Amino acid sequence: MNVIPRPKDMPRDMKDLTVTSGPLPASRKIHVPGRLHKDLRVAMREIEVEASAKEPPLAVYDPSGPYTDPTVKTDIRLGLAPLRAPWIEARGDVEEIPGRDARPEDDGLAPGETTKVPVFDRAGRKPLRAKTGRNVTQMHYAKAGIITPEMEYVAIRENLGREKALQEIRANVQGGESFGAAIPDFVTPEFVRDEIARGRAIIPANINHPEAEPMIIGRNFLVKINANIGNSAITSSVAEEVDKLVWSIRWGSDTVMDLSTGRNIHTIREWIMRNAPVPIGTVPIYQALEKVNGKAEDLTWEIFRDTLIEQAEQGVDYFTIHAGVLLRYVPLTAKRTTGIVSRGGSIMAKWCLSHHKENFLYTHFEDICEIMKAYDVSFSLGDGLRPGSIADANDAAQFGELETLGELTKIAWRHDVQVMIEGPGHVPMHKIKENMDKQLAVCGEAPFYTLGPLTTDIAPGYDHITSGIGAAMIGWFGTAMLCYVTPKEHLGLPDRDDVKVGVITYKIAAHAADLAKGHPGAQLRDDALSRARFEFRWRDQFNLSLDPETAEDFHDQTLPAEGAKIAHFCSMCGPKFCSMKISHEVRDYAEKGMAEMSEAFKESGSEIYHEAKLG
Amino acid sequence: MNVIPRPKDMPRDMKDLTVTSGPLPASRKIHVPGRLHKDLRVAMREIEVEASAKEPPLAVYDPSGPYTDPTVKTDIRLGLAPLRAPWIEARGDVEEIPGRDARPEDDGLAPGETTKVPVFDRAGRKPLRAKTGRNVTQMHYAKAGIITPEMEYVAIRENLGREKALQEIRANVQGGESFGAAIPDFVTPEFVRDEIARGRAIIPANINHPEAEPMIIGRNFLVKINANIGNSAITSSVAEEVDKLVWSIRWGSDTVMDLSTGRNIHTIREWIMRNAPVPIGTVPIYQALEKVNGKAEDLTWEIFRDTLIEQAEQGVDYFTIHAGVLLRYVPLTAKRTTGIVSRGGSIMAKWCLSHHKENFLYTHFEDICEIMKAYDVSFSLGDGLRPGSIADANDAAQFGELETLGELTKIAWRHDVQVMIEGPGHVPMHKIKENMDKQLAVCGEAPFYTLGPLTTDIAPGYDHITSGIGAAMIGWFGTAMLCYVTPKEHLGLPDRDDVKVGVITYKIAAHAADLAKGHPGAQLRDDALSRARFEFRWRDQFNLSLDPETAEDFHDQTLPAEGAKIAHFCSMCGPKFCSMKISHEVRDYAEKGMAEMSEAFKESGSEIYHEAKLG
Repeated sequence: MNVIPRPKDMPRDMKDLTVTSGPLPASRKIHVPGRLHKDLRVAMREIEVEASAKEPPLAVYDPSGPYTDPTVKTDIRLGLAPLRAPWIEARGDVEEIPGRDARPEDDGLAPGETTKVPVFDRAGRKPLRAKTGRNVTQMHYAKAGIITPEMEYVAIRENLGREKALQEIRANVQGGESFGAAIPDFVTPEFVRDEIARGRAIIPANINHPEAEPMIIGRNFLVKINANIGNSAITSSVAEEVDKLVWSIRWGSDTVMDLSTGRNIHTIREWIMRNAPVPIGTVPIYQALEKVNGKAEDLTWEIFRDTLIEQAEQGVDYFTIHAGVLLRYVPLTAKRTTGIVSRGGSIMAKWCLSHHKENFLYTHFEDICEIMKAYDVSFSLGDGLRPGSIADANDAAQFGELETLGELTKIAWRHDVQVMIEGPGHVPMHKIKENMDKQLAVCGEAPFYTLGPLTTDIAPGYDHITSGIGAAMIGWFGTAMLCYVTPKEHLGLPDRDDVKVGVITYKIAAHAADLAKGHPGAQLRDDALSRARFEFRWRDQFNLSLDPETAEDFHDQTLPAEGAKIAHFCSMCGPKFCSMKISHEVRDYAEKGMAEMSEAFKESGSEIYHEAKLG
Repeated sequence: MNVIPRPKDMPRDMKDLTVTSGPLPASRKIHVPGRLHKDLRVAMREIEVEASAKEPPLAVYDPSGPYTDPTVKTDIRLGLAPLRAPWIEARGDVEEIPGRDARPEDDGLAPGETTKVPVFDRAGRKPLRAKTGRNVTQMHYAKAGIITPEMEYVAIRENLGREKALQEIRANVQGGESFGAAIPDFVTPEFVRDEIARGRAIIPANINHPEAEPMIIGRNFLVKINANIGNSAITSSVAEEVDKLVWSIRWGSDTVMDLSTGRNIHTIREWIMRNAPVPIGTVPIYQALEKVNGKAEDLTWEIFRDTLIEQAEQGVDYFTIHAGVLLRYVPLTAKRTTGIVSRGGSIMAKWCLSHHKENFLYTHFEDICEIMKAYDVSFSLGDGLRPGSIADANDAAQFGELETLGELTKIAWRHDVQVMIEGPGHVPMHKIKENMDKQLAVCGEAPFYTLGPLTTDIAPGYDHITSGIGAAMIGWFGTAMLCYVTPKEHLGLPDRDDVKVGVITYKIAAHAADLAKGHPGAQLRDDALSRARFEFRWRDQFNLSLDPETAEDFHDQTLPAEGAKIAHFCSMCGPKFCSMKISHEVRDYAEKGMAEMSEAFKESGSEIYHEAKLG
């Protein structure tokens, strides 16, 4: 547990800030070097198992960044090291700019008012922007045939121990049904480049967020998850949000969205950006709305444009933009059970109706592309008309918008801007696959990024579960990234515990999807844990699990003694009555039995078929 | 909260016994009368909504029995009223018998030793048994064309408010895909009879458990769930187990299995039976094993037979019997990653191997049928070779046993004994449907009853979720009852909180399956809750949910004031920035807009198409 230093001039909430760091149990950070790009050091986590297992450590995907690396001293006030800075600089297509001046309105303050939360010290670092006429997106490089360090990084990252593992246990792996995806046995940098070039995957990587470790989102790669954090008008502080960021990636979140809506949005976001080793997404219309005091009808293209530039300069990696909420779709929602439940969608719907004009995000879409490609911000095209209840699933409003998102995807691709598409929402199980199939068809296989979906409306307080079911299924069908839902969905803001439960639930959904797709190597971890379980290696069972702390805690609630962790039984059955133990005996019997049969066979002359004794 | 009286001669753990009773929030117990059988009073729960909603109360399925009916005074020491006693008596085919004497070994005690836990006072009530030559199973009556009170009871129970609801909102209901099931719009007693007669559904209803309210398990009815309770050699007491029983049905468990394995099994079971308004299942081999001091090889048919009779006389409604673990299948498990993980399966495997004889449950299967039909105990044919890891899913051992269970099903049906089939286990998503399809094919559509399945092995501590995903899917595909998995699975014995989380998770899975199957009326509750959500009726949103207490508690963690429960916003967005609120404005705009357009249309002469103004 690293506690950040507490300078005496820091406001109370920063002095109290602690982030949970240090390695997970039995784990160490390893770094795999690049081949094309020799300076690459791709971070992974290795979990050690007991010597009795006679197994190598298990490498697992690890988005937690330097916080779990004891050899790196992190300091929230200084931010993370800018890993990607030399790669960006080496391309020679960006320049430092003075950048837009921060204004009180950026933090939702009145003119002349100053923020009361601490300001991150950038130590003079200036924003970068593409040189005039240059396009700095990963898609642009990919189409030009360039394999960037980012592309090689994600190729190595996706392959975690797979090469060796495949040779060893291919026979044991459980098939899979990928519904037409093209998952390779081994991910090469060239495969990554090709997937980026054709729009089937994205690497969200703003040139102003060099702290982030590259990661890829696409149907032919491991399924990713996103955690939402952010303050609201009601509650939450800087310290809490930075802590939630570090906490959510510790448990496996691959990207984080900052959905702040209250005051100090700009200032809090700077703390998040500078300390985030994962891509950060936002919904810029939230901040724009704050700038017009919450009156949707007062929004203008100019205010929105200014907000995009403000956030692009800070380093936001992907923007949710609700450009598909067209005027003609809005009346389609009037008879819905739950209307429009997307905040961004409802803002734009209100703007369209009150001006009786087409959505300015749609009419200015090419202008937005021009901004995105100067920083390499990826689109996350928002589903502003997603269903908010089972009754509204897959309706005309939802699918009308999806078709428009497909049209916009093609425009963005003409600008070489990376795109993913957001999806629902509330959808009963039998209607989930239709969402995936339609998205693939109309959006040219751009990555799908869904919120759940929730498979029933009747369990507020458990919507991580109602949605985890839908997330696992849609992940299997081809969704590239799953946006988590916490137990507090519909009820309140998630706290630290809720964030962790949401992340673990979605890691389960994503991994279940990887297994079902037949993703090479996904089953390695299941097999390692199951062997540990069968061999009563309790410590290994905990350490190989998604949440070692909870697993050990639950075990210890019934059998707290340290000795019980090496016992060949557990509390469910007790020492006399354990199926695993009996099963080992069965194995011994069976082997002994076979040996005896083998002896008998040899004695009888080793003939496979004996002549039947007639008569 | 009713606290049972504490007589001074009761041991400490009974004095401390409290069971949670009383109605759920805004709920009252209603009783719908029978038509064929006039004395029937079918219990349901009605949830009241706010007057502003202008909606009738919502009827929901309610397995909680008299404990949630404030007009009934329950007393654990006396047990529940024998609801079905007059129906059983009226059939004239049973007789009182002296019954088997209780022995110290029934409670795992040494000869002469007496139990230290309190004994339920049966007040002279004697066991019933079919008269010589008679068959008292629901299947026997069904095949004879008789509609029993039990059959009419479940028909009314399954129809909860559906008649009226279907007329009102049929248009709004979301289709469904039932994979060949034959779900009727309206369940008639004759439909129930027919389903029972052809073996596609069962009503577990031992004549010695007249306290149970009839319920039905079958693919063409609502998906049911089961909760496991039971003490073990390590921990847990009578008081805890009775409390878990009442607690699990309060949250919606449809049946309960008593999986006790330690001492006092017989005595604890009597307390459970006499206080259970739901069918109770057991695994008799567990108790038989206790009687031979845990040595599987010492088990005999005689000891097992005696245990079946002991439990049938107490009133157990269904027996898990691992008669499909054949000698020839056992070696197929030797190379598995996790061997045999079913306790019953491993006991029988060990017995088979050590005697090198065929499983006595298989060789004596017809003898077992003779016992079952004398009490109407249903078979739950155990999957002793179910996979305990992703690596072992759908293997030769598992599917070999399933085929044998199909063969045994047909034998049981020849005896008119009701049968359901147990299923796995650990299965990745893409292999789930194969389980269902194969079960339907080889077991003649007998109801499937699965444990999860768990869709990954890597999340001990969260296996309610890994399995909830699989349970929802297999429920959709056609599984009739889902056996819950709690967060403690693989780690320890579930406590009260774990039981509740397990039950709610499985209610979610079962309901998501009902929705996806297109079960008529299933969506009523989703729609009612979603309307409450959209209209900011916070209290209704809590009360209509599966767990009102948790929903309200989560809401209050961020906005505790009572006033916030009537506020038209919530803590996620705050008052200025609420999509639901904006959505209401959109609806107003749209309606106003349409009215204005309508005015404009009238003014322009009410012509649909205006002539284009040329030039």
